[in-house]
Amino acid sequence: MHSAVSAPAPDNLGAIFDRISGVGAQVGEGVTRLAASAEDGAARALFAEWMTRGGARMSHDAIGNQFACFDWAGERAPLIFAGSHLDTQPRGGRFDGALGVLAAGCAALALQSEVGGGTFRPSHNLVVVNWTNEEGARYQPSLTGSSVFSGVLKMGDALALRDGAGVALRDALAAIGVVGAQGSVPLRPEAYVELHVEQGRKLLAAGFRIGVVEGTWAARKMTVTWNGRAAHTGPTPMADRRDALLAAARGIAAFEAAIAGRYPHLHRSAARLEVWPNSPNVVVDRATVWFELRGVDVLELDRAGQAALAVFEKAAMETGTRLEIVSDLIREPAKMDGRLIAIASEQARLCGFEPLSMLSVAGHDAVALQNSGIPSALIFVPSVDGIAHHPDELTHPDDMHTGLTVLMAVLRRLSEGQMGHGCERQEARHA
Amino acid sequence: MHSAVSAPAPDNLGAIFDRISGVGAQVGEGVTRLAASAEDGAARALFAEWMTRGGARMSHDAIGNQFACFDWAGERAPLIFAGSHLDTQPRGGRFDGALGVLAAGCAALALQSEVGGGTFRPSHNLVVVNWTNEEGARYQPSLTGSSVFSGVLKMGDALALRDGAGVALRDALAAIGVVGAQGSVPLRPEAYVELHVEQGRKLLAAGFRIGVVEGTWAARKMTVTWNGRAAHTGPTPMADRRDALLAAARGIAAFEAAIAGRYPHLHRSAARLEVWPNSPNVVVDRATVWFELRGVDVLELDRAGQAALAVFEKAAMETGTRLEIVSDLIREPAKMDGRLIAIASEQARLCGFEPLSMLSVAGHDAVALQNSGIPSALIFVPSVDGIAHHPDELTHPDDMHTGLTVLMAVLRRLSEGQMGHGCERQEARHA
Repeated sequence: MHSAVSAPAPDNLGAIFDRISGVGAQVGEGVTRLAASAEDGAARALFAEWMTRGGARMSHDAIGNQFACFDWAGERAPLIFAGSHLDTQPRGGRFDGALGVLAAGCAALALQSEVGGGTFRPSHNLVVVNWTNEEGARYQPSLTGSSVFSGVLKMGDALALRDGAGVALRDALAAIGVVGAQGSVPLRPEAYVELHVEQGRKLLAAGFRIGVVEGTWAARKMTVTWNGRAAHTGPTPMADRRDALLAAARGIAAFEAAIAGRYPHLHRSAARLEVWPNSPNVVVDRATVWFELRGVDVLELDRAGQAALAVFEKAAMETGTRLEIVSDLIREPAKMDGRLIAIASEQARLCGFEPLSMLSVAGHDAVALQNSGIPSALIFVPSVDGIAHHPDELTHPDDMHTGLTVLMAVLRRLSEGQMGHGCERQEARHA
Repeated sequence: MHSAVSAPAPDNLGAIFDRISGVGAQVGEGVTRLAASAEDGAARALFAEWMTRGGARMSHDAIGNQFACFDWAGERAPLIFAGSHLDTQPRGGRFDGALGVLAAGCAALALQSEVGGGTFRPSHNLVVVNWTNEEGARYQPSLTGSSVFSGVLKMGDALALRDGAGVALRDALAAIGVVGAQGSVPLRPEAYVELHVEQGRKLLAAGFRIGVVEGTWAARKMTVTWNGRAAHTGPTPMADRRDALLAAARGIAAFEAAIAGRYPHLHRSAARLEVWPNSPNVVVDRATVWFELRGVDVLELDRAGQAALAVFEKAAMETGTRLEIVSDLIREPAKMDGRLIAIASEQARLCGFEPLSMLSVAGHDAVALQNSGIPSALIFVPSVDGIAHHPDELTHPDDMHTGLTVLMAVLRRLSEGQMGHGCERQEARHA
């Protein structure tokens, strides 16, 4: 009776997805599971319990990346990773991140049953991963856990990050029980596969149900502070004021005007702003704004960034404030692994879904890993109306299951360490 | 030996001023005693202990206004109030508010000694007052305690105010031990006198050491929200975005341009801004900005406010966001009490200080009381460079003591319930 376990049951994914979706959820308010919050802690516990019950050995590293290890091929066997993240934006969607972790978990459990039944004999061990603070909502930079794992970000620097309230990530993790590594943390895998929602409109517009990501846009992230001088908003003569919020407002407005005029195809935003002291009766002393530019061409981002810095400086000059560049980072465009793109595309076709080759505008853990030399694949399923980071984010159940089917086929193939076709073999067994 | 008590010793004021200045102070960071915070609670306790030791009977009402009552003329005698506030802005100055409370306390203690010595027989009782949340830094509106006392603001509405973290003023007060009224709370006084730092440059520029405030500027306070839509800052097509922070930035920049162009003599500011969700990767869903316009002419504020609303609406139209007017309040210009202006000016002259008649741009508790029909006086001493709401705020010790001398003369006169001259009589006794 292998047919019951050889393909993941749709309701398995639906059931665990509904349970996780309830953690940090409020009616009409989406899901709020900020990294290392109590809600994140609850989601992590649920994930660990589910995986442990399914036979996985759990471990986590000091930054809180969770690993559910299925040791099918012995202690020294090479590893395949699959997963995503369980943290969300404030008032975020249910699918972003959680779908990738839970689909990987479902695929692993289904394959585990086959291993138990003797019908599947992988040469690799499979690890389902939940990366810490992918979103970068509470702690910047984003992709924290995957960047630490891949060696791009130092563990000590990551643990020292502070949220808006000044709480160090180290302390936030400790508050949900993550103090140092626990268990045997897996080493670098042979490959990493991530299923994610598209967060755009391209798949549905083009009539595809599966996207295979070939690469990502580049991003330039600039955090700047205007330093003014606190003063009473009433009696202080206008000529004496050095208003940091006025400077920031002019900077934000001029940034949009400059980029829209000269580089209209670049995606750009100013989405976070911290104002001090933020009292209605005190001229703002200090305003910090987080700007982003995204595009395919790094040279163009370089030019657009220079234009942005010029308008920021102009806003400072006009307001008598002092501009300070807190950080100005380029995220290079990534090319996902060619061999994995071919395997994912082939498996999608074998499962009956012609894949769309596409670029991702957003960063993902798979990109962080790929950039550090771990061959990684990123597979998309459609988002309704491209809505993301919003309670209305939606991926239809059919598409979730399509994603799971393709992910499982890819993981089966990779776990076998050979060029066999997951879906084909599965179908052959069903026949 | 009455000479030791008939004039307040400078070091009495200096000593208590230094003690209060240390509460909530950090080196180089000024003083932070937000209303109903732990630091405010500590300052209140120090004030109460000091006054009680000096023979006052302490009480407070349910909004936390503190009253140090000197019952010199019996239970049913009419009352004179003097005071100001002990709360500060974040990283505020030492003098704003505290000087008025502590100088009133010193004057009361000096007069109390004369009463004890039998050389001063007032017909009125004196009450030294510390009003709750004058600053409006933590809770808006400002002037909370004095507005409740004067009947302009309902007690229940004031207690239900919430700070930026959602903490109700009722709960913040309870956390520092203020639950309901305690003791016999005094009724409406016959007059209220407040000594305050100028927070402007006029006194020093004109060579005066005492200002008597004739009236105040009017103010228009507008709080507006732009409602956009949360979305991923990466993949979301630019055309789909409804960015509330871009709208707010354009609104702030256009507000300053419109008012500076047409009404350059008005003081104006946007000093508080709340952004939601304030995550670098989410297009801002909602941005609320606190705008102020100040001037002498209400009709002009009306026209300027209409111009402001027009630019706010334009910013909404251009960004696809929806403008919401959260509140739009006019604070009428006040005229301080003519009889008290005459008395304060006369006493200043008798003490040897020619007073400057002036207008106050900022609101003060004395204005809230005056507007509710309680005759009130507001006396200014110089601020160095007009710096206010900033750690560098400074009033020289000589000027502090000048203010105390004049305040005491006024209180002596008012406590006698007659037209006698405080300084003259004091000097006569010294002769």
